[in-house]
Amino acid sequence: MIHADYIINGDYVLPMDEELTVIKNGAVAIKGTKILDVGTSQEIFKKYTARTIISGEGKVVCPGLINTHTHAAMVYFRGIADDIPLKEWLENHIWPAENRWLSPEFVADAIELACLEMLKGGITTYNDMYFYEDAAGEATKRIGMRAVLGVGILDFPTVSAKTTDEYLHNAEQFVKNWKGDELITPCIAPHAVYTCSPETLKKSKAMAEKFAVPLHIHLSETVREVEETMAKYNKRPVELLEDIGFLDETVLAAHCTWVEGNEIDLLAKRKVGVSHCMESNMKLASGFAPVVMMLMAGVKVTFGTDGAASNNDLNILSEMATTAKVHKALVQDPTVLDAKKVLLMATRWGAEVLGLGKVTGSLEKGKAADIVMADLKKPHLTPMYNIYSHIVYSMRPSDVEMVMVDGKIVVNEGKLMTADESGILYKAEKWGEKISSEGTV
Amino acid sequence: MIHADYIINGDYVLPMDEELTVIKNGAVAIKGTKILDVGTSQEIFKKYTARTIISGEGKVVCPGLINTHTHAAMVYFRGIADDIPLKEWLENHIWPAENRWLSPEFVADAIELACLEMLKGGITTYNDMYFYEDAAGEATKRIGMRAVLGVGILDFPTVSAKTTDEYLHNAEQFVKNWKGDELITPCIAPHAVYTCSPETLKKSKAMAEKFAVPLHIHLSETVREVEETMAKYNKRPVELLEDIGFLDETVLAAHCTWVEGNEIDLLAKRKVGVSHCMESNMKLASGFAPVVMMLMAGVKVTFGTDGAASNNDLNILSEMATTAKVHKALVQDPTVLDAKKVLLMATRWGAEVLGLGKVTGSLEKGKAADIVMADLKKPHLTPMYNIYSHIVYSMRPSDVEMVMVDGKIVVNEGKLMTADESGILYKAEKWGEKISSEGTV
Repeated sequence: MIHADYIINGDYVLPMDEELTVIKNGAVAIKGTKILDVGTSQEIFKKYTARTIISGEGKVVCPGLINTHTHAAMVYFRGIADDIPLKEWLENHIWPAENRWLSPEFVADAIELACLEMLKGGITTYNDMYFYEDAAGEATKRIGMRAVLGVGILDFPTVSAKTTDEYLHNAEQFVKNWKGDELITPCIAPHAVYTCSPETLKKSKAMAEKFAVPLHIHLSETVREVEETMAKYNKRPVELLEDIGFLDETVLAAHCTWVEGNEIDLLAKRKVGVSHCMESNMKLASGFAPVVMMLMAGVKVTFGTDGAASNNDLNILSEMATTAKVHKALVQDPTVLDAKKVLLMATRWGAEVLGLGKVTGSLEKGKAADIVMADLKKPHLTPMYNIYSHIVYSMRPSDVEMVMVDGKIVVNEGKLMTADESGILYKAEKWGEKISSEGTV
Repeated sequence: MIHADYIINGDYVLPMDEELTVIKNGAVAIKGTKILDVGTSQEIFKKYTARTIISGEGKVVCPGLINTHTHAAMVYFRGIADDIPLKEWLENHIWPAENRWLSPEFVADAIELACLEMLKGGITTYNDMYFYEDAAGEATKRIGMRAVLGVGILDFPTVSAKTTDEYLHNAEQFVKNWKGDELITPCIAPHAVYTCSPETLKKSKAMAEKFAVPLHIHLSETVREVEETMAKYNKRPVELLEDIGFLDETVLAAHCTWVEGNEIDLLAKRKVGVSHCMESNMKLASGFAPVVMMLMAGVKVTFGTDGAASNNDLNILSEMATTAKVHKALVQDPTVLDAKKVLLMATRWGAEVLGLGKVTGSLEKGKAADIVMADLKKPHLTPMYNIYSHIVYSMRPSDVEMVMVDGKIVVNEGKLMTADESGILYKAEKWGEKISSEGTV
C-alpha cells in the first residue's frame, strides 16, 4: 500500500484527460501538492491508504475551473455604473474611480474578495491584468489560489505609472519578484493595440521572451478598436500583432470579439489562446465573438469573466452555460458547444492557453492537485442522465462543496478555510461606503 | 397599534409599485394571506405589532418572481437529451419519453421537484401547460405555491387523450375542478397554431371566455412554425390568431421568437402578454426574440424558463441576467433592458400578463403576501452600489433565504418548510433510474 495524503472519491470523477474519461465511482489520490493517481474507487483504495479520505457520495469530482481573463480587483467596483454606454462607463466612471481609489491596499483587500468569490465558484486559477500586482500576488497566495498575474502596460499615465518606461520597469520588476513561485506565474500584460504603440508591444514581447513568461493582451474587443487600428495602421488588430511578430503560443488574447476569417486563421496558425468573455461583451454591448468559427479553425477558446464592473460576477459556471446557449442560437445549430467540449474549454484548455498545461487543468498523475468537488443532491441537478449536461447547464457556484488548490483544501463545506469570510466582506463594505460617499473624482 | 401576523423588514424593500420606490430600511406587514402595509421600518413598527418579526438585516425584500411559461413536470427529463437538433430532440427523445412515462403519478412527483426548485430560486408563481394538471394542481397546493395551470390541447393523440374533443373535455373539466381556488388559477392552453386547427383554437377561445379564465399558447417559436403556417394559411402565426379573434389581454403567448413589425404591433394593440424564454430558445437554437422591439411597441414581455428538458433549470434569476445581457449585444446598446426594467418584467408585469395583476407581482396593500427575502452578505453581492443591479446581474437562487406565498412561509433559511426535500429528491432519483434503465420507448 502506498501512503497518500488525501483520497477524494465521488459518484463521478471527470479527469478531463485526453480521452475525456467518465469514471463512475471514481477516486483521486493526492500526495503533497500533486496528484498521485486517478481511477475507480476500487482501484485507488486497493493501491493507496491516506491520512484523510474525503467521501464523495452524491458528488462529482473534476479539475478546478480556469478564469482566463479578469481584472480581479475590480470587484470593488461591482455594479458601480451599469446600463450606460461604454464610453461614458469608462471615461466618467471606471477610469476616474481607478485613478481616485487604486492603491496597493485597495488591490490587496479587493483581491481577497475576488479570490473568495472565485474559489467558492470552483475556480482554482485566474489570469489577471491590473495594477499593483505585487499586492495581488501576496493576497492570492495568502488565500491559496493559483494565478497568472501581469502588470498592465500602457502608453498613457495612470495612478500606477506616469510613462511607458515606468510601466515597463514595473512589469519587469514584478516578473523578477515572482518568477519561480509555486502558485503565482508572472506574465507581461501590454493592455491593447489601441493603448500601446507597436514599439511598446515589441518591448513587451521582448521582455516576455527574455524571462520566458506568458503574454496577456486585450485584442479586438470592440468595433471601435478595429476602426481606430485600421485608421492608424491600415491593418486590423490581429494583423498588426502578426506583423510585429507578437503572436505565438505564449499569447493569451482576451475577447477577440471582432476577428474575421483571416485573423482567425492567424490566431490558429500562431496557436494564440483566446479568452472569450461572453457576459462582459454582451453587457457592454461590445458584440458576439465568432466562437464557433474560432473552434472550427482550431483556436483554443477558453472562458474569462472580465472584471466584475462589467459582468457583474466572477462566475465561470455561468459563462459556460451562457456561452453554450448563445452560440447555438447565433449559428442556428444546437449541436455546437456541446457540454463535454464546454467543460474541456473551462478546464484543460484554460490551463494550456496560460502555459500551465503541464501544471493544472486536468486530474492526471503528476499534475498539481487543483480539484473541485460539487454536490449533485440538489433539486436543479436531479434526476441524473448526463453528468456533463448537469455541470454545464445546471450547476451553480453554491453546489461547490470542496476546493483544493495545490494539494491544500481552501474551501470546505462551501466555506473558505484560509481566511475569515466575514472579515473580507466587512472590509469590502467599508471600501464600498467610502467610494459611495466620496465619489470617484 | 394594529395586530399583524408578520412583519418582515430588510435593508432594502423593493415593492415594485408604480413608482418603483426603493425603501431603505423598509418593512412589510402581513395579516392572513394579505399585505397590510409597506413602508420604512420606522413607519411600520410604529403602526403595527406582529406575532412574528422576520429580521432582515443585510437582506433585500421584494415580490416573488413570476415564471410565465413552463412545463414544470418536465424536470424529470432534465438533461435527458442535450446538444442535438430540435427535430431529433422532440421526435426521438421528448415525445417518446412523454408517451412512455407520463401519468398522474409521474406529474404529481415531478411537480414537487419543480416547485422545490422554483421556490428555492425565489419564484412564487408559475404558468404551466402540460398534461394531468389535476395532479399538478394538487402537488402545487400541497407545496404551497401559486400557479396558473392549463391542460394542453392538441389535434393529435398522446398518452393523455386520443381526440381533440377529449382534450377539450379534459380542459373544461380541469377548469371546473379548480375555478375559484386561492392558489391555482385554471386556464385554457391550446398548444400552438401548428398543432391546433383554427377550429380548435376558436373552441379554446370560446371556452376561456365562457369560464373567464386566461389563455396560454406557444406562438411563433421557430422559423419552421412560421413557414408551415405561411404554407398552410398564407398568414404568419400572429396574423392567423388575429384573424380568428383569438388575441386579447387574456392571452399569454410564449416565445414570440419570430415575430415581425406588423405582428408586434398586433400583440401591442391586443395587449397580449409575452413570455420570453431566452435560455430555452438559445439552447434549442430557435433564435432570439425581438424583445427590445416588443418593449418599444408597448408589449409586456416577461420571463419564462420553458421546461427543464430544454434549459436545463427553472431559474428566473438566470433568465433575467442572461436576457438583460444578450439583448444589449443584439441591439448594440448597453442602455436597453436596464436592471430596474428587468426586475419589473420578472415581478409585476409577470403577474399582470397572467391576469393576476390585482393578486400578486408587487408588495402593495391588499395584495397577496408573495414575498422573497434574499441575503446580500455574499461575496458576489459585495460591495453595494445599486440594489437593482445586484439582483439582476449577480444574485443567485442560493441567496434566497425566505419565501412566503399567500402569507405562508414556504422556504425558510433556504429550506422548504412544506415537504421533505430529501424525500422529493429520492423520488426523483428513483424515477430517473427507471427512465434510464427502461428507456423511452
